[in-house]
Amino acid sequence: MPIAAQTVVDELLHALPQDALVTDPASMDAYRWDRALDPDAGTPLAVVRPTSTEQVQQTVQIAARAGVPIIPRGAGSGLSGGSSAVDGAIVVSLDRMRRIDVDASTRMVVVQPGAFNAEVKQAAAAQGLWYPPDPSSYEFCSIGGNVATNAGGLCCVKYGVTTDYVLGMTVVLSDGRAVTLGGPRLKDVAGLSLAKLFVGSEGTLGIITEIVLRLLPAQRQPTTLVATFPTLSGATNAVLAVTRRMRPSMLEFMDKASINAVEDETRMGLDRDAAAMLIVQSDEPPAAAAEEIAEVERLCLEFGATECYITDDAQEGEAFVVARRMAIPAVEKKGTLLLEDVGVPLPRLGDLVVGIERISAAHGVPIAVIAHAGDGNTHPLLVFDPQDFDQKMRAEVAYGEVMDLAIQLGGTITGEHGVGRLKRPWLSSYLGPDELELNHRIKTALDPQNILNPGAVFGA
Amino acid sequence: MPIAAQTVVDELLHALPQDALVTDPASMDAYRWDRALDPDAGTPLAVVRPTSTEQVQQTVQIAARAGVPIIPRGAGSGLSGGSSAVDGAIVVSLDRMRRIDVDASTRMVVVQPGAFNAEVKQAAAAQGLWYPPDPSSYEFCSIGGNVATNAGGLCCVKYGVTTDYVLGMTVVLSDGRAVTLGGPRLKDVAGLSLAKLFVGSEGTLGIITEIVLRLLPAQRQPTTLVATFPTLSGATNAVLAVTRRMRPSMLEFMDKASINAVEDETRMGLDRDAAAMLIVQSDEPPAAAAEEIAEVERLCLEFGATECYITDDAQEGEAFVVARRMAIPAVEKKGTLLLEDVGVPLPRLGDLVVGIERISAAHGVPIAVIAHAGDGNTHPLLVFDPQDFDQKMRAEVAYGEVMDLAIQLGGTITGEHGVGRLKRPWLSSYLGPDELELNHRIKTALDPQNILNPGAVFGA
Repeated sequence: MPIAAQTVVDELLHALPQDALVTDPASMDAYRWDRALDPDAGTPLAVVRPTSTEQVQQTVQIAARAGVPIIPRGAGSGLSGGSSAVDGAIVVSLDRMRRIDVDASTRMVVVQPGAFNAEVKQAAAAQGLWYPPDPSSYEFCSIGGNVATNAGGLCCVKYGVTTDYVLGMTVVLSDGRAVTLGGPRLKDVAGLSLAKLFVGSEGTLGIITEIVLRLLPAQRQPTTLVATFPTLSGATNAVLAVTRRMRPSMLEFMDKASINAVEDETRMGLDRDAAAMLIVQSDEPPAAAAEEIAEVERLCLEFGATECYITDDAQEGEAFVVARRMAIPAVEKKGTLLLEDVGVPLPRLGDLVVGIERISAAHGVPIAVIAHAGDGNTHPLLVFDPQDFDQKMRAEVAYGEVMDLAIQLGGTITGEHGVGRLKRPWLSSYLGPDELELNHRIKTALDPQNILNPGAVFGA
Repeated sequence: MPIAAQTVVDELLHALPQDALVTDPASMDAYRWDRALDPDAGTPLAVVRPTSTEQVQQTVQIAARAGVPIIPRGAGSGLSGGSSAVDGAIVVSLDRMRRIDVDASTRMVVVQPGAFNAEVKQAAAAQGLWYPPDPSSYEFCSIGGNVATNAGGLCCVKYGVTTDYVLGMTVVLSDGRAVTLGGPRLKDVAGLSLAKLFVGSEGTLGIITEIVLRLLPAQRQPTTLVATFPTLSGATNAVLAVTRRMRPSMLEFMDKASINAVEDETRMGLDRDAAAMLIVQSDEPPAAAAEEIAEVERLCLEFGATECYITDDAQEGEAFVVARRMAIPAVEKKGTLLLEDVGVPLPRLGDLVVGIERISAAHGVPIAVIAHAGDGNTHPLLVFDPQDFDQKMRAEVAYGEVMDLAIQLGGTITGEHGVGRLKRPWLSSYLGPDELELNHRIKTALDPQNILNPGAVFGA
C-alpha cells in the first residue's frame, strides 16, 4: 500500500470506531460490486460502515483532504454499476444506518438510507400508511439507493416515482459539510429545489444520510385483470387505449419469452402461446374498481385479447404480480443477462417492442421483454451464453442498439435504474452536448475535486 | 439613455420583430411590477415580448454580451416581487407565448409559459383530463410563473404541488443556449434531475419557454363539509385528526377576521362569531366520499365544532370554496395588505396560528389568517392603514416576526409564493449559511454574470 494510502487508512482508524472500518481484502470483496457485476470494478482502500451522519462527514473530510475517491453504496442491488468500487477508493456503505421513524400524524417518515424499501413499507403499514414506490427488488434494495437513482417500480403508472415522495434530506457534501435540504413540510419554496436535485444524482453530488418521505393512506386491496394477446401490437394498443381513459394502479406487460420463462418455473398455467400478457390492477373503492376493470376488459377484447381473467381476490391477484416480478430471475436461468431499462413516450411503446424483436433476430440474441407498460418503461432482458464469446459480443452490440432505438423514438436510455457506469457511454448521445455540459457544470460546482463516485454518470 | 444602453436597444430592434419590443416609458410601466407592488421596482431599458424560444435566445444573447440584467415575467401575479423590474434591465414578458397542446393518449400537455393556469385546466378538461395545481389566482396567473415558483394551491393536500406535475421543459440559459430537460416520459433518470432544479428557481437560473406537464383523469364532483369552531385550537386539532386518518381533496381554514371580511362582501350567512371555519372536500367515488366526509364530521364534532354542514351538490360546495378564495380581496378592503405565506409541519399549525394572534395583539396590527390547513401552509394577511405611518412600520415588524416564528416552529418562510425580492432578507436565517452557500454555488455555476433576475432570491 502506498504511504499516502496508508495515511488515509490510519486517519480513518483514528477517527472512526473500530467496527466501522473494514480493510482486509476478503471482507472488502463483498463491497466491490452491485448486481451489474461490473467486470471493471476496482479494489478499494477501505470500506467504511458509518452509523451516523457525523461519521460520514469525518470520512469525507479525510478523503477530501487526501483527494481520495468515495463510492457510496446502499444494499448493492443496483443494476447499472453505480456502486462499483474504484481502485484506491473509500467505499462508504450505508447498510448500518437504517433507523425508520414514522410520524402518522403528518403521514411522513424520516428514514436513514440503509433501510430496505420493504422495511419502510412495513413501518408505514404498521400505522395504516403506505410508501408506494415499489422496485421489483423492494425486498432487498435500500431506500437510500432508491433516492439516489430516483427508483420506480410497478405502481408508478398511478403513484409516480421516488422523487414524488421526497420532501427533504440531509446530505454530506464533497467537503464534508452536512446540509439539510427541505424537510417535513408539504410546501416549501424558500431557495432552490436542491433536495430534488440530489434525487437521482447517483452519489455523484453528495452522500444522503437521512431522508424525509411523504406517505399515503394504506392502499386498498386491488382488483386484478390478466389478459393474453395473440400479437404484440394488440397488447401495446390496448395499453394505450387503457391509459387514455383511466389510471390503473398497475399496468404490466410480459412477452412470450418472459411468459414461458416464468411458466417454466411456476407451472401456474400461463398461456405459453400468447404473444403478450398484460397484468392490470385497479385500487379504486370496490364498485369503482369493478367498473374500471370491466372497462379494461372491454378494451383488451377490442384489441384482440384471446382471454381475460378477472379476480378481486387480493392473494390470487398478487400471484400474477409475483409471476411478473420473478421474470428477471426466471429468464436469468436461460443464460447470462444484459438487463435493459429503456423508456419511451407511451405512443411509441409498440414501435419499441417491435424494434427490439427485430434487433433480437438480427443478432441472434434472445431478448425477453417485460415492461411497466403504463409508463412506457421497458426492461428488455438480453440473454447470452457466457461461454459463447461471439454471442456475448453480439449481445453487447444489441444492448447498444436497444438504447439507440429508444433515443430515436424520443425515449430515454434509463427509466429507473440509473446511468451508473454501464450506461455512461450512451449518456452524451441521449442528452446532447448542451445538456451534458449543464450536468457537468453542476457536478463541478458541487464536487470540484471529482471525488464523489467518479466514473458513475460522468466521465472519470 | 447612456450609449451602451442605446446600443442594446438597437441590437434588440435589429434582432426582433417590431411588435416584440416595447421601449416607450408609458407602455413599459405595466411591466415594472407584480402584485407585490414593490416600491423599489426600477425602470427597464426595454420590454421584450417574444413569441418563440428563438426570440428569447436572441434577447438573452444580446443581454449577456452587454452584461445587462434580464427580468423574466409571466402574468405579473406574483406576490413576492419576483418580477419587479430593475433599473436598466430588459424585461422579458412571456405573455404572448401561450400555445397549449394536450395529448390525451399520454395524459400530458405541452404548454408555453404565458398560458394562464385556468387555460391549461380548460384545455385539459376539454379532453376529460385535469391539471390539479390551483393557486387562488388560477384565473390570472401564468403556468410559467407557476413553474418558476413551484406554485401550490388548495388541492395540494391530496394532489401535490406544481413540481409533481412537471416532466420536462425547454430553458434558455444565461448564455442564450436553449436546452431541453426531461420530456414526455413518466420515468427518466438519465443524468441529473435538472428539470426539477429549474422548478421554483424564480427566473434566476434560466428562462423557461416550454413545459411538459402530466395530467390526471378528470376530478370527480366533490362532497363538501363546512365546520365552524368556537376556538382556534379546536379547528387546528381537528385538522390534525383528519389528516392523520384520511386524505381529503381540500382542507382549508379561515379565522374570524377572514370569515367576517368575506361575510361583509357576500352576506352568504357565514357564522361571524366562529373563531374558525374549516372547508373540507372529498373527491372519492360517491359512497366513499360520503363515508370520508361523515368521518370528518365526527372528528370536527369531537374537537368542539358548533356546526357542520354537508353538501354533495357541487355548485353549493363551490360557493364555499369561492368564499375562501375571495378572502384576500375581501380583507384587502379593510386596508393595505402585507401578505404572508409561512408554512409549518402540521403538528405546529396550532402554535403558529396562536402565535400570529399574539404578534397581531402585540403590535396593534390586525392579522386575518387563511390557510391551506391540510398542508400546514398559512397566509396571514397583515392589514394596515397606509396613511398611518406608525402602523405601517409596526406591520413591517410584525411581518418579520411571523417569519421568525415559522422558522422557530420548524417551518418555512414561503410555502408557495416564492422568495422574490420581498422575502430575500429572511432567506439566510431560514436556510443557514451552508445551504445558502450551496444555493449560491448553483446560481454562480449557471449564471456567472448574475444577469438573470438579479436581486430575486439571491442578494444583488
